[in-house]
Amino acid sequence: MTYCVAAIVDEGLAFVSDSRTNAGVDKLGTYSKMHRFFGDGERFFALLSAGNLATTQAVIKHLQRNIKNGQLPNLATAVDVEDAAECVGLASIEEQKKYRGSRSDFSPEATFIFGGQIRDQEPGLFMIYPEGNYVRASTSAPYLQIGEVKYGKPILDRIITHSTSLKDAGKCLLVSMDSTLRSNATVGPPIEALYYDKNSQQTGIHYLLEENHEYLVTLRESWGARLQEAFQTLPDLQQASVPSASIIPMDR
Amino acid sequence: MTYCVAAIVDEGLAFVSDSRTNAGVDKLGTYSKMHRFFGDGERFFALLSAGNLATTQAVIKHLQRNIKNGQLPNLATAVDVEDAAECVGLASIEEQKKYRGSRSDFSPEATFIFGGQIRDQEPGLFMIYPEGNYVRASTSAPYLQIGEVKYGKPILDRIITHSTSLKDAGKCLLVSMDSTLRSNATVGPPIEALYYDKNSQQTGIHYLLEENHEYLVTLRESWGARLQEAFQTLPDLQQASVPSASIIPMDR
Repeated sequence: MTYCVAAIVDEGLAFVSDSRTNAGVDKLGTYSKMHRFFGDGERFFALLSAGNLATTQAVIKHLQRNIKNGQLPNLATAVDVEDAAECVGLASIEEQKKYRGSRSDFSPEATFIFGGQIRDQEPGLFMIYPEGNYVRASTSAPYLQIGEVKYGKPILDRIITHSTSLKDAGKCLLVSMDSTLRSNATVGPPIEALYYDKNSQQTGIHYLLEENHEYLVTLRESWGARLQEAFQTLPDLQQASVPSASIIPMDR
Repeated sequence: MTYCVAAIVDEGLAFVSDSRTNAGVDKLGTYSKMHRFFGDGERFFALLSAGNLATTQAVIKHLQRNIKNGQLPNLATAVDVEDAAECVGLASIEEQKKYRGSRSDFSPEATFIFGGQIRDQEPGLFMIYPEGNYVRASTSAPYLQIGEVKYGKPILDRIITHSTSLKDAGKCLLVSMDSTLRSNATVGPPIEALYYDKNSQQTGIHYLLEENHEYLVTLRESWGARLQEAFQTLPDLQQASVPSASIIPMDR
């Protein structure tokens, strides 16, 4: 299983991904699910992936090959971020097509989060579906998730808006990842985090956090402790304030 | 969709359920998913249900009919809580059997959380699967969830242990419900909550909280505010503490 999450805020883009890949309980592996392209002062893209690992690796290779060979469409010549997102979608369709139909119970599907910026255009963040089409994150829904998305969603809903600072957005993605790690054993470290400052067009600040990395441990412990403290301050449900229902008759 | 959750702690049992039932986006209804049996000083049971609504209603009817007619097995003559849980499982199998095979894309499946106490025996809490078999909650895993379970799981993992007070356990189930309501529109109020004191064998304290019930609103707002405060106290990821990776070459 996988959990990848990204946010687009006024100050830039933040990305967080896990590295656990499994093909059955006794075949655990770790692979990076975060890939970066360019960062040359002109354009920058990051790609997070979930789904069939062979497909996601083939898509990365496909994108890199097209850039190298100048084959169109490619990420080097994309005129805007939508154009770049479409490159990824088309690469995904092409790669999946090669392996479809090999077995009826096999799915080569993969889903991506793709974000970046070209020159001084507005940065963009996209969800690219297995079908190759995509949607753009909006200011009212400034984050995207793929993989095991539910455990880590409530904290995102409460914290992230477009005006959240990039630092806080990244921290919130890490808390969301921590909740997911705790509730689902098939999402696993190392955790990668990437902070991209708007209008930098550089590769951003990239962190690779191993399982027992000091910061992950601190974050886990302080968040757990803060949550317990927060919980203790919640008001009690007063018995007097609501009617206590009578016994429901068995034969109602 | 449905979300029901229950906990067994040293002081007793707590149950929380939503009331949203839907059979398509334009056919929303509200039905209680919490049913209580007895509470006569000798035995008490509560049943939470998820899945096919016709099946869950039929199972409740089935259990009530067997009690009334003295037909065995039934909840009135069950010698212990496992025995009672088995009654529910058998009723569920029998009711589902009537409707299976009517259409290949139809599933009469239902899942239940069942808990209670008989005389001075240990209280029990059970998950009853669509197949009719069941597992008992343990002191190391003292809560059970059915329906839309993931959004509300992280807070349960952090708060509930067997030594949590009954009041706090119930409050935690309500916070878990609130997170689920916020993240999934198909789980909806009114919310029912039930607190059963161990060794009371009474029907417990039952709350029916409508959407804008003062307590639900207060809980939602204070939990949201407390979470944001807690989040603000978290340490920052220091750039100096981890290596900032260099640009990943495109052709790696």
